[in-house]
Amino acid sequence: MLTRGLCILKGLSFHAHIQLRRGMAKSKFEYVRDFEVQDTCLQNCWVVVRVDGRNFHRFSDQHNFTKPNDARALLLMNHCAKSVMEEIKDICLAYGQSDEYSFVFHRKSNWYKRRASKFMTHVVSQFASSYVFYWNEFFPEQPILYPPGFDGRVVLYPSEQNLKDYLSWRQADCHINNLYNTVFWALVQKSGLTPAQAQDRLKGTLSGDKNEILFSEFNINYNNEPVMYRKGSVILWNKVNEISKKVIKLPHEAEEKEVEVCRVRNQPVVLHCDIINDAFWEEHQNVLSAES
Amino acid sequence: MLTRGLCILKGLSFHAHIQLRRGMAKSKFEYVRDFEVQDTCLQNCWVVVRVDGRNFHRFSDQHNFTKPNDARALLLMNHCAKSVMEEIKDICLAYGQSDEYSFVFHRKSNWYKRRASKFMTHVVSQFASSYVFYWNEFFPEQPILYPPGFDGRVVLYPSEQNLKDYLSWRQADCHINNLYNTVFWALVQKSGLTPAQAQDRLKGTLSGDKNEILFSEFNINYNNEPVMYRKGSVILWNKVNEISKKVIKLPHEAEEKEVEVCRVRNQPVVLHCDIINDAFWEEHQNVLSAES
Amino acid sequence: MLTRGLCILKGLSFHAHIQLRRGMAKSKFEYVRDFEVQDTCLQNCWVVVRVDGRNFHRFSDQHNFTKPNDARALLLMNHCAKSVMEEIKDICLAYGQSDEYSFVFHRKSNWYKRRASKFMTHVVSQFASSYVFYWNEFFPEQPILYPPGFDGRVVLYPSEQNLKDYLSWRQADCHINNLYNTVFWALVQKSGLTPAQAQDRLKGTLSGDKNEILFSEFNINYNNEPVMYRKGSVILWNKVNEISKKVIKLPHEAEEKEVEVCRVRNQPVVLHCDIINDAFWEEHQNVLSAES
Amino acid sequence: MLTRGLCILKGLSFHAHIQLRRGMAKSKFEYVRDFEVQDTCLQNCWVVVRVDGRNFHRFSDQHNFTKPNDARALLLMNHCAKSVMEEIKDICLAYGQSDEYSFVFHRKSNWYKRRASKFMTHVVSQFASSYVFYWNEFFPEQPILYPPGFDGRVVLYPSEQNLKDYLSWRQADCHINNLYNTVFWALVQKSGLTPAQAQDRLKGTLSGDKNEILFSEFNINYNNEPVMYRKGSVILWNKVNEISKKVIKLPHEAEEKEVEVCRVRNQPVVLHCDIINDAFWEEHQNVLSAES
Repeated sequence: MLTRGLCILKGLSFHAHIQLRRGMAKSKFEYVRDFEVQDTCLQNCWVVVRVDGRNFHRFSDQHNFTKPNDARALLLMNHCAKSVMEEIKDICLAYGQSDEYSFVFHRKSNWYKRRASKFMTHVVSQFASSYVFYWNEFFPEQPILYPPGFDGRVVLYPSEQNLKDYLSWRQADCHINNLYNTVFWALVQKSGLTPAQAQDRLKGTLSGDKNEILFSEFNINYNNEPVMYRKGSVILWNKVNEISKKVIKLPHEAEEKEVEVCRVRNQPVVLHCDIINDAFWEEHQNVLSAES
Repeated sequence: MLTRGLCILKGLSFHAHIQLRRGMAKSKFEYVRDFEVQDTCLQNCWVVVRVDGRNFHRFSDQHNFTKPNDARALLLMNHCAKSVMEEIKDICLAYGQSDEYSFVFHRKSNWYKRRASKFMTHVVSQFASSYVFYWNEFFPEQPILYPPGFDGRVVLYPSEQNLKDYLSWRQADCHINNLYNTVFWALVQKSGLTPAQAQDRLKGTLSGDKNEILFSEFNINYNNEPVMYRKGSVILWNKVNEISKKVIKLPHEAEEKEVEVCRVRNQPVVLHCDIINDAFWEEHQNVLSAES
Repeated sequence: MLTRGLCILKGLSFHAHIQLRRGMAKSKFEYVRDFEVQDTCLQNCWVVVRVDGRNFHRFSDQHNFTKPNDARALLLMNHCAKSVMEEIKDICLAYGQSDEYSFVFHRKSNWYKRRASKFMTHVVSQFASSYVFYWNEFFPEQPILYPPGFDGRVVLYPSEQNLKDYLSWRQADCHINNLYNTVFWALVQKSGLTPAQAQDRLKGTLSGDKNEILFSEFNINYNNEPVMYRKGSVILWNKVNEISKKVIKLPHEAEEKEVEVCRVRNQPVVLHCDIINDAFWEEHQNVLSAES
Repeated sequence: MLTRGLCILKGLSFHAHIQLRRGMAKSKFEYVRDFEVQDTCLQNCWVVVRVDGRNFHRFSDQHNFTKPNDARALLLMNHCAKSVMEEIKDICLAYGQSDEYSFVFHRKSNWYKRRASKFMTHVVSQFASSYVFYWNEFFPEQPILYPPGFDGRVVLYPSEQNLKDYLSWRQADCHINNLYNTVFWALVQKSGLTPAQAQDRLKGTLSGDKNEILFSEFNINYNNEPVMYRKGSVILWNKVNEISKKVIKLPHEAEEKEVEVCRVRNQPVVLHCDIINDAFWEEHQNVLSAES
């Protein structure tokens, strides 16, 4: 026991372990705080936090995700990303595809003094708890079997071009993987190949070859596939008019009445479009220029 | 557009953006990977990941947590911590109190090459998703209103003594806060003081004074308060016999029959005891000595 | 003893301690190399290494430096900085004043894989050995009494503007200190005030007041003070024609003859000018744009 | 120009750039200081700074170092290491061989708040300036041709065993290299082999083979080679009686007289001995136990 009179700690009374500091009790163990190290992100750099599903191959199998893309799973990911942005307003943009999501903090952000561990853990924990919380909305007929884990990391980009190239890298990755997966699963699901056979068939093929297979064998024009699958999802802040109803009673009137109240609110909005070309950045100039 | 023939990227065809590497398509944007920095934890140090609830003052209010302690909330925390340990076997011990939990990775652990971001984000995301996932088990009559966030950090301790002092620090903190909260809420709930009055009453009091108030005014012997509240929770691995039933059919027998199968399994077990004194470490010598 | 047959190490023969790796002997102690941590500087950032004299107040007293400025000491600093740049070509610019010098590595530099410890220690050690090596050239009548120490640090700047502001900060510091010192030492050396009296006199004065004192009491127009004192020293690379003599013998001629050979060489050149205004950067556009 | 009335900075007067802070002028550029990052060494770890000569192969050729070992060069290294220790008392031990030296700061040292850059740059710059400063004492007939550079790094060791293993690693390295070099240069200098032939001859040989060649072909017993070459140099602090003469005049005596004053002083002392076996550490128990 730690309290007075009763507890003897290693031969000393408890009071010997506790000193007073500004009226607060403080233990002799507090020196261990000095072992924490600062992990400040370099000033004036874009801070990207990327979240990845842990063992999502297994998770998607056990929860019967549709192949090659499960719209419910992607929409859930988008919803979680919006939930993260609503909680952390310093995020100016997010981009997601497959089981990953990248969140961009503005270069001027001073959120939690730019501590890397704060960036990482707040984003990843909010994403993880949202994933379970909103699961039922998107998978009403498929119960979630166990709590999933996520991996997070922080990467800094000093220039706007570096940041754009990062996002382009993720979108190019989305394209490459989705094209591959679309053909792969067509071969398996429609032509009856085994996964190993499908893999063999695709070995060494270029983008063009894969488009050709889709078109000639399955009559699929890849460009007509859903844009969310081909481009992933971008989330930006957008001003929206929010209309809500309120019951008010004006002083000179006898009765309460319901009125509509309109308020401009910043809201995360999901887009599916190319972010590699300059057109996107020209259209959304305020995204990176505006300070958080 | 990224696909063949159609898409022109900044004046180049898409193929100009993609090169082949060992049969894998690779975009020109991949250079951005070099901006990731290594965050390896120093070899041969104990790695502690501490998870804290974000804005849990508000969360506990909105979910009607009992004051000063809500057993359901503490048991849920313990359950989440066990869930984390089941997922990450390199954790050799965990200690929790209030809305925080500390996880200790063995000094010899080489999990994910000891990358700090992996330690932090896997623990915190597993904890967060478990919190929502298991909520209903512990709060059957109180729906969870929104997904909670958690904060995580990594701290390294070079010596066993530093690590023990870290855990002692957290348990001393538990004691100090719980004693304060126990008196504070007694004054508010039983004597009808306002929070401000209760705070004033306690200003400058030492442990002994608080014990005295509890005993003389509320007939409470603090040492008889539930030990989970006073000491927090320690989780260790324990070998348990796991008995399961299996239906088998032996080759020389006509019918199937049900048999009991016994298996020794390592399981996380929750204790509520003093971890400041040497007695705890003498009793559980294998905890720190055993390699993960 | 470590050799065969004779030496017994902790009960084992020496051979038990040494294994063969690719034909090279390797000791069992090599695991300690894994404790080194990577300290890579973030890609695409300007890397500044600043060197400061250690205890130079004492050093300048003991070597009879002229106050407030000793031209010999400043010229020696410049010479050392040039020696550093000749050794490390990735430095694109240096700026020095008083007992400090800043070296700028180009943002694209990949010198020693951008390891911070390499940047720091190579610069500081080359500077320190040069200081002693060239001392006699600049202080022919004042022997150097002991080897001086220097302090070094690395700072990263993501944008060109940040880098320019860093250099402006150092030059503004040079101005502020030099103006103060010029007045301070005039009061001491010419008006016979004690240092304490001079300090008191200057307490709370602004730049304008100091200029006034200089002009009205000592007939000094601060702007006519030597520019190296007021502005410090910038070192840039400059292409110069280097003419050397060579003795050659042409095949169809009977005798050797001496010829002049002209070669364009990159050489560090010292300037004393304002680097805060844009004019400097407009005139020297290639300094930051050219890749190292 | 930065001074009053004259200088216009980017459209603003200079005064707009300077604010007052506690009576000190402060420029608007000072924000760049926030880009410096903390590089604190983890508490309670042994801090090793290793210094290596840069391009010393070339340096030793140009300064006619004797092969395989040049006693003058090794003694100069030892002298520089002592000079470093005299300047930085928190170093509790140093070990050197060839063109490298390792300096051990005590685990409890709080020198410059344990900043890695301070540890590295102070040690390496003091070493470099000492190298040039003391050169003539050790090479009276060989002028130093240019200022040498050195490389430095910091490595942390959490346990005493890790630290001892680090030092053993360096001494094993000394043994392996020196044995090789001794045979190699005997083959070249005494048997007239070319370096390439000597290298071929030694390819694949073990320690025993090399000892055999030395003994049978050159009548050299490796164990009789100078111990400084075989073991390198350890530097420890040692209490010594320092006797100095002083002229004093006692109040009741008519004349001044010279007296001897004896003072106990801590001095770095060089040893050449095995540091791999426990015997060394048993004999010098206070080296690691004593706090700095």
